[in-house]
Amino acid sequence: MALPKSILKLSDELSALPGIGPRSAKRVALYLALKNRGLARKLGGSITDVVDSIQSCEICNNVSNEETCDICLSTNRDLTTLVIVEDAIDLDNIETTGTYKGRFHVLGGLISPVNGIGPDDLAINLLMNRLKSDDAIAEIIFALNPTIEGNATSLYIKSEIENMDREIVFTRLATGIPAGGDIEFASSQTLTDSLVSRTVL
Amino acid sequence: MALPKSILKLSDELSALPGIGPRSAKRVALYLALKNRGLARKLGGSITDVVDSIQSCEICNNVSNEETCDICLSTNRDLTTLVIVEDAIDLDNIETTGTYKGRFHVLGGLISPVNGIGPDDLAINLLMNRLKSDDAIAEIIFALNPTIEGNATSLYIKSEIENMDREIVFTRLATGIPAGGDIEFASSQTLTDSLVSRTVL
Repeated sequence: MALPKSILKLSDELSALPGIGPRSAKRVALYLALKNRGLARKLGGSITDVVDSIQSCEICNNVSNEETCDICLSTNRDLTTLVIVEDAIDLDNIETTGTYKGRFHVLGGLISPVNGIGPDDLAINLLMNRLKSDDAIAEIIFALNPTIEGNATSLYIKSEIENMDREIVFTRLATGIPAGGDIEFASSQTLTDSLVSRTVL
Repeated sequence: MALPKSILKLSDELSALPGIGPRSAKRVALYLALKNRGLARKLGGSITDVVDSIQSCEICNNVSNEETCDICLSTNRDLTTLVIVEDAIDLDNIETTGTYKGRFHVLGGLISPVNGIGPDDLAINLLMNRLKSDDAIAEIIFALNPTIEGNATSLYIKSEIENMDREIVFTRLATGIPAGGDIEFASSQTLTDSLVSRTVL
């Protein structure tokens, strides 16, 4: 290796980030070291800031600068609906649509026995306690990926809540051809879903 | 935006890095904030360390922890050959092959009028001064990308050195079908190059 140790160390740590391979880690490390030292100084500080300032909302498990996140604190949300998401990125995507005015619950993952992730590793107990103290919630919308893990997680949570003997409607995001998508390249499962859930024109 | 300000700031800075788009920047920011705070603490420090410790070698312009890089300091290199590369990543790739035992010169880019990069923005003056004080160099190997910019840069440096009235052989990396590559997908230019430079079997 012809690169200095501090570059190799940085590049090694960068390649542990999601979506960054060893080659692009090296490129980023050199870019920071040589081409954009101003950005590097800011970035070093911002990463430390984030670790020091970010916590999980005590109500919904969303990322937050405070104990309770802005959405849970807001008085302008519809209190009757609760969208369940895997993580804060999915929450952010849904929030950005502007379509949904209710509140969220962030699981922090999906149940996945293969990866050793069980219900206790997720914010499911937090959800159960939340439901006990929150009578307003009348509909729970599962916005989890339409995968084996996503579906299993939805069904598990549904059955846990049904044990609580509470009147709640359970719904999930529609599956089908994505807007702007191409039927030619849609999978058989997607086509089946979109036929079964066809809507009136 | 439903994400805390410190996450958005970090994600914004991350998306300024080469090869990282806004979506993966968000994912990395949340990963650092929530899933791997240990890595985040190390990374914040390593980035700052790199900026503080890395400089350009005063002889060859390679990245270095000291004023002079390990390769230039080494007494085990062939002093008669000099490989000219665009950046430290290319140097590292060539060094990793173990085939080349000579020294390097890192330009820090390629001449590209379209991008406003002229000879004075590169370590070409450093190379000229190096040649004046270094009589050992007998061959210069251009290891620049076989592109318009790479070829123009090679030709410019060659003519500058020829003006110095010095006995130097100029060579460049062979172009042709990559090892393990597929003739079916080779460009017309690559095929032409590989025909013209065909080697005896």
